[in-house]
Amino acid sequence: MITSVANQKVKQVVAWQTKAKERRKDNVFPVEGLKMFEEAPEKWIREVYIEETLLEKLDKEGAAYQKLERVGFEVVSSEVFKRMSDTQTPQGILAIVEQPVYSFEELLKIENPLFVILEDLQDPGNLGTIVRTGEGAGVSAVFMTKNTVDIYNPKTIRATMGSIYRVPFAIVEDVEEAIASLHMAGVKTYAAHLAGKDYYDCFSFKDGTAFLIGNEGNGLKKETADAASAYLKIPMEGRVESLNAAIATSLLMYEAHRQRK
Amino acid sequence: MITSVANQKVKQVVAWQTKAKERRKDNVFPVEGLKMFEEAPEKWIREVYIEETLLEKLDKEGAAYQKLERVGFEVVSSEVFKRMSDTQTPQGILAIVEQPVYSFEELLKIENPLFVILEDLQDPGNLGTIVRTGEGAGVSAVFMTKNTVDIYNPKTIRATMGSIYRVPFAIVEDVEEAIASLHMAGVKTYAAHLAGKDYYDCFSFKDGTAFLIGNEGNGLKKETADAASAYLKIPMEGRVESLNAAIATSLLMYEAHRQRK
Repeated sequence: MITSVANQKVKQVVAWQTKAKERRKDNVFPVEGLKMFEEAPEKWIREVYIEETLLEKLDKEGAAYQKLERVGFEVVSSEVFKRMSDTQTPQGILAIVEQPVYSFEELLKIENPLFVILEDLQDPGNLGTIVRTGEGAGVSAVFMTKNTVDIYNPKTIRATMGSIYRVPFAIVEDVEEAIASLHMAGVKTYAAHLAGKDYYDCFSFKDGTAFLIGNEGNGLKKETADAASAYLKIPMEGRVESLNAAIATSLLMYEAHRQRK
Repeated sequence: MITSVANQKVKQVVAWQTKAKERRKDNVFPVEGLKMFEEAPEKWIREVYIEETLLEKLDKEGAAYQKLERVGFEVVSSEVFKRMSDTQTPQGILAIVEQPVYSFEELLKIENPLFVILEDLQDPGNLGTIVRTGEGAGVSAVFMTKNTVDIYNPKTIRATMGSIYRVPFAIVEDVEEAIASLHMAGVKTYAAHLAGKDYYDCFSFKDGTAFLIGNEGNGLKKETADAASAYLKIPMEGRVESLNAAIATSLLMYEAHRQRK
């Protein structure tokens, strides 16, 4: 059992929790909580840390315990777990999971896809919520510019509620090039933009579709929006000037889902 | 100019920022940032605090400065403002605003209303986002149970992006009684519930409509859901078990908006 917060492994977990660079270097990310542990693909799991008291409480016949036995785990004291955890009220189990690798080119081959392209999103909760809602709406993949918040940020991972394991995603180096590739693949791209003239429910999203969503404060860059097949907007009553990025993206993804049912 | 963090006014502002009880006692809430100050109804503003450096930068002919002159303000040092602020990167202006009073009974008289009823929502960001998206979707009012997070929580206020000034809201003491009153007024109530059999877009929301949304972790209480006119659900692909509460509410409100256009 690890009881010292000075333990090298503890320090390494904290580094993975707090530094995108460390996660990238080792190609891993930490996940917390029983749900996130249980849903993690077994092959992706590299390390598991469990708090003594949680281990005692676990049903030895239950799926979680059996998975623990299969993948192996290390028991840690409450104090150590608190140090390792990114949350105020730690759930007592933390796994170090391999980063999946998806290729933009491979994802482009999906038939009749529904994509989302996020430009420079900054809020980790928004990104995680988009991945979660994206799975619900049946998106094929989520693409992000490299200035988008790190998808492996612990807050993002938490907000995905497990969808991080199932929704393919990729970082695009150059968003205008990515748009051109999508067009070549027969996918129409729609820029969610306040300057749009047509409402989002006037378009058909039954064929290959990609929604372009801009940064929380500034929206899409003009060059990016201009590269799209069309602008679209979400109607807003009252004095509302914009919607939260995760809300806007969800409305678009579910409109596509509604049309495709 | 206030330069001491020990100043009584500074302590009072901090109390309003951090304690719902203090806000309730004095019927006020703090708002931060130029946008929130500029959109605040003038009659609601009781006090304004502005950081020295921001005041110097303000255009004396601009709307913000002219409003400051009309309502009166107090200049504070950077250190004092940092203490008063609820945010990591304070915007330099903070107003103390009166809590508006709406009556559930009066709101019930709205013709063909679109309501949302929130049961025990706990996340301040979710509540604020629902108010913001609610204005965008044209809701008539937002109702909350008394165990819902305080709508005047600074995080909630921030997430409303100013919609707090324009969307009527009320706390309902007994949610089942409120549902009964809504039915008496000819409003249909829909429980967003995983046990729903019919998808949300199979219903007509053109007549008086109220959506019932449950707590983030547990959803609606069974008694509450059973009191509703009907259950409805949002389709979810993959292994998604639920959507974020603000996302689910937004999808419903915008489906109603789409039908009512």
